[in-house]
Amino acid sequence: MPAAKVRTRTRARSGAYREFEALLGAYRDDTTRSVLSAVPKTGPPYLYDLVTAYPQRLGKGLRAALCSATCAALGGSRVQALNSAVAIELLHNAFLVHDDIQDGSELRRGKPTLAREHGVPIALNVGNATNLVALRCLMENRGIVGAQASWHIMEETERMMTYSLEGQAIELAWIRDNACDLAERDYMQMCLKKTSWYSFIYPMRVGALVARPRQLGAAEFCRLGWYFGAAFQIQDDILNLTADGRKYGKEISGDLWEGKRTLMLIHLLNRCNARERAMLGGFLALSRERRSRKTIERVRDMMERYGSIDYARRAARQLAGAALIEALAAFRGLPETPEKQFILQMVLYVVERDR
Amino acid sequence: MPAAKVRTRTRARSGAYREFEALLGAYRDDTTRSVLSAVPKTGPPYLYDLVTAYPQRLGKGLRAALCSATCAALGGSRVQALNSAVAIELLHNAFLVHDDIQDGSELRRGKPTLAREHGVPIALNVGNATNLVALRCLMENRGIVGAQASWHIMEETERMMTYSLEGQAIELAWIRDNACDLAERDYMQMCLKKTSWYSFIYPMRVGALVARPRQLGAAEFCRLGWYFGAAFQIQDDILNLTADGRKYGKEISGDLWEGKRTLMLIHLLNRCNARERAMLGGFLALSRERRSRKTIERVRDMMERYGSIDYARRAARQLAGAALIEALAAFRGLPETPEKQFILQMVLYVVERDR
Repeated sequence: MPAAKVRTRTRARSGAYREFEALLGAYRDDTTRSVLSAVPKTGPPYLYDLVTAYPQRLGKGLRAALCSATCAALGGSRVQALNSAVAIELLHNAFLVHDDIQDGSELRRGKPTLAREHGVPIALNVGNATNLVALRCLMENRGIVGAQASWHIMEETERMMTYSLEGQAIELAWIRDNACDLAERDYMQMCLKKTSWYSFIYPMRVGALVARPRQLGAAEFCRLGWYFGAAFQIQDDILNLTADGRKYGKEISGDLWEGKRTLMLIHLLNRCNARERAMLGGFLALSRERRSRKTIERVRDMMERYGSIDYARRAARQLAGAALIEALAAFRGLPETPEKQFILQMVLYVVERDR
Repeated sequence: MPAAKVRTRTRARSGAYREFEALLGAYRDDTTRSVLSAVPKTGPPYLYDLVTAYPQRLGKGLRAALCSATCAALGGSRVQALNSAVAIELLHNAFLVHDDIQDGSELRRGKPTLAREHGVPIALNVGNATNLVALRCLMENRGIVGAQASWHIMEETERMMTYSLEGQAIELAWIRDNACDLAERDYMQMCLKKTSWYSFIYPMRVGALVARPRQLGAAEFCRLGWYFGAAFQIQDDILNLTADGRKYGKEISGDLWEGKRTLMLIHLLNRCNARERAMLGGFLALSRERRSRKTIERVRDMMERYGSIDYARRAARQLAGAALIEALAAFRGLPETPEKQFILQMVLYVVERDR
């Protein structure tokens, strides 16, 4: 691990990386401004005022940037893609608000989750309202990209939402049924539905629909987005255990408190001895409130000891490598624009980021 | 009150009423069958299997019936309206699933709520999935009523969802901020947004859009639906206090357990003396778990004593009267079809029903 850390830091200081982060920041600022202006300014309390809460805490803005950059890399206009990028960012924030309720999470982007701050009833409503503002943006697409393309984008949205809910259902069922006999492929399938589709495949397909509405293949960007998303999700789970708390913005080891079936946990369950497995099964069967800090630390140590975190790190890098090959193929023959470079760099960023 | 009871029973036995209930049942059976077939048969556990839970418990099916009947009364085809009626029923069920989480309700249609049975995380997901199946139906409208009308229906849906969420936000804010200084007009405004729009205005406007897509006025059915919905909601709140538990399917006095600001409660708060007002304020400030059955009964008795329930009963009947006048005007000049009669009878039904 020290070696990996040094490599990340070196890269982080390199020019290409700084350029990538500057461009990501520029995309994010554009999107955030438009997100905030898409949300109604008046209305009852605890609704639209809270719809802007998570967007104002500034996430990375990866999804919106990926949509805009894909559109531009394919010869489309970033301005035309902005409205869809705003919808994507809103759908992401809506998902986070509901996800934080479902996971009982404490922190989001360095502050208490909406559910912790305002209670579940209000947070649930705010998540729904955020989805609704996104739907409104998608409906306004009609005047921006035309009836045909905006209808296709709606269809892509419906498909993405279906996969996201199914992925979420798989994960919730594992927790509810205390699944302890999962294989790596179960995790990968959940990841495809829960993360890859909404965070990578969907933004790229929407960007492509804006750029060239009549030419999107049925499976275009699916394999790229699938590797991309799996690499991203595994890195996310690793950061949850290893990140610097000040930068991270979420509870460190929150996934263990929530009993989340990460690749590391699945690796550990498949490697440890029978006694340890029984102990883990008992730990996972407890509700969040009944888990102790001491046991969390013990599970964390077991993951180190069995090489589960290293294993996940290698898996994330291999998946990022596969995504890079797919990305080179997907954008082959297109002009060497800053946006094309940006997407290729994003593939490396998702496994090298520290937050 | 005994007089009112006798009147209801007499009417309930009358021929017109039986005819209405038979037709409502027929509409409901048609819709339920189509709702169940619109929900995917396969998928991860605790998702689509639970999307059908509330629809299978058979509600009244008022909203879907109102959409279909409006379409037919205006000369359209019930078959063409069925898909939209299915979406309306699904949106209603999604709303119920989320509402039961928000209110911490125990029973829905005679059985434990989804949140009580499967926990909040899964129930939240099921509500979202129910909305999504509805969205899919609305998108399929394109092949049934054409691109133009289906787009208008989407716009109506977006508007309805906005009002519903705003109405829900108003009600949640009252509970959160322990609002005790509400006037009747506050209740009416909340009711317009939370109940009238999604349960009456929206179904009628969608039915009209299917029947004659190019002729829907901007405010058509709004006043009728508004009175209709207010009468319905007040009757709903009265039943919550007075219904026969076996027929009702929800917790009797559940609204008091939840601290819901009903017309009766607002009437009582504005009529009682300072000491009682202070006691009520203290009672409403408690969380659900900390309220006692004894105090619930005391508040219920105060409502009787101050005539709050009678007051609400009169208000519901007056509003139903106003709705009837609006309905006669809205359907004036149209052939005397069974569907037109059905809508007129529904206005009386909403204030005479016992469940």
